[in-house]
Amino acid sequence: MPRYKITLEYNGSFFCGWQRQHSDADVREDSKQAKNCTCSTRNQHSVQGALEHALLKITGNSVLVEGAGRTDAGVHAFAQCAHFDLNLPIEPHRLIGGLNFYTSPHACVVLKAEFAPSDFHARFSATSREYVYKINNRRPPLALDRGRAWHVPRALDVDKIKTYAHDFWGNHNFNAFRSSACQSKNPRKTLDMFNVVETNEMIECHVKARSFLHNQVRIMVGTLVWIGLGKYEGDVIKQLLNSGERTASGPTAPAHGLYLSAVHYANHEFSNRLISDVSE
Amino acid sequence: MPRYKITLEYNGSFFCGWQRQHSDADVREDSKQAKNCTCSTRNQHSVQGALEHALLKITGNSVLVEGAGRTDAGVHAFAQCAHFDLNLPIEPHRLIGGLNFYTSPHACVVLKAEFAPSDFHARFSATSREYVYKINNRRPPLALDRGRAWHVPRALDVDKIKTYAHDFWGNHNFNAFRSSACQSKNPRKTLDMFNVVETNEMIECHVKARSFLHNQVRIMVGTLVWIGLGKYEGDVIKQLLNSGERTASGPTAPAHGLYLSAVHYANHEFSNRLISDVSE
Repeated sequence: MPRYKITLEYNGSFFCGWQRQHSDADVREDSKQAKNCTCSTRNQHSVQGALEHALLKITGNSVLVEGAGRTDAGVHAFAQCAHFDLNLPIEPHRLIGGLNFYTSPHACVVLKAEFAPSDFHARFSATSREYVYKINNRRPPLALDRGRAWHVPRALDVDKIKTYAHDFWGNHNFNAFRSSACQSKNPRKTLDMFNVVETNEMIECHVKARSFLHNQVRIMVGTLVWIGLGKYEGDVIKQLLNSGERTASGPTAPAHGLYLSAVHYANHEFSNRLISDVSE
Repeated sequence: MPRYKITLEYNGSFFCGWQRQHSDADVREDSKQAKNCTCSTRNQHSVQGALEHALLKITGNSVLVEGAGRTDAGVHAFAQCAHFDLNLPIEPHRLIGGLNFYTSPHACVVLKAEFAPSDFHARFSATSREYVYKINNRRPPLALDRGRAWHVPRALDVDKIKTYAHDFWGNHNFNAFRSSACQSKNPRKTLDMFNVVETNEMIECHVKARSFLHNQVRIMVGTLVWIGLGKYEGDVIKQLLNSGERTASGPTAPAHGLYLSAVHYANHEFSNRLISDVSE
């Protein structure tokens, strides 16, 4: 069974997140389940559901798609990665065409498809992930960037944000920067990058780590925005990293400012052609 | 009667263009006219209509809004300009708040409002206009940039496009580069700028002129894209400027790649405060 790695771009506004939901039963033509669904995202599909539906249409089989990051509702992706196995090999360029035929009307596009080794796992093999968080800092509401950036109408002290962002670098207990629903046993993570880039009215936070806690990027950004608004005094980030108190950190920045921008894999080789170790 | 100049941002995907349409009767609660409307943009409002509706709500009066450029359906604006007169002065910051209350749900946002001299006209006083045309040149369809750039999936020769774009600079008869519906008596225009900037998969054309013919930017871009695809040989742009034959030039590039990015006024002063020559 050949394994595939795919790279995806999607507009999170049109999805209830990465993970398959009850509402996906609609897509899968199992309307019974959909009718009983009571979740708020009832009329929206998940990215995983849209891909699995497309693979069902293409191959006639139920295929499980595993993603590198389970992005929340509203979160976008420049380059999410996922893997799945097919019973029979399909040429990558034909697979891209087929998948995009079914998924691109839903604002999800397959950028790349490659054969992957059989021990490759989109989530567990990832050696690092990158996210971009976009903040639009201007007085008037957004027209062109609506749903694509967090609109913060009060003027932010960007130099202060840049200075404090540096305190996130390195290995810390990020307990104060994770959702109360986060299921990770260990809140210690190593942040390899937290760069703040300002262009005109847009402030972009570029972050990189092996992995992140649930809502970690959004709470780090929410806290920095409060710093930029002057709501904190002193060495806040260091204090929050030490105390680990979620109630003392800032708000969770809205999902629609967040973009999964890259997933890196160091130990696997991918190919456009079927290679011996995947054909078995 | 104080005159106002406003600066606007809008997402053209949500409008049937700048100019008031039958369908705007909906907005204006004149449903009779709306019911008789047969135009294709029936369920979409115009930017002008949305602004006039907002001013009716704010002032209780019918107010005529005149724009600097009558953008077509689908064309976006970073900074369209318009003017109108009110019976009674309203502080600019309050006017912005009121207008955005009514227009921003429609993806149109007032960025700035200023008092203007009584002889100021958004269209006729403009000394130059700038547009940006965005082309996304990659194989896979667009998810995040859908409706915001022209997707050209075949590889373009960008160096060739840059070279030929230079032939547009200066004063020419642009008859080969205007819509057959263009009502301008004189097809001679002076192009002050045509810069082509490439970043990753995006190619941006930045153009500037005192004024443009109908669809001029879109036909110039469509022709350059055909050049970039190798559909023309020799000094095409020069030949087309000489011949003036619309049938020989390229296609009209789609509206959704075009952004009105600036309107300049050299001979008028604007102010946040009511000034003597406008209070009359």
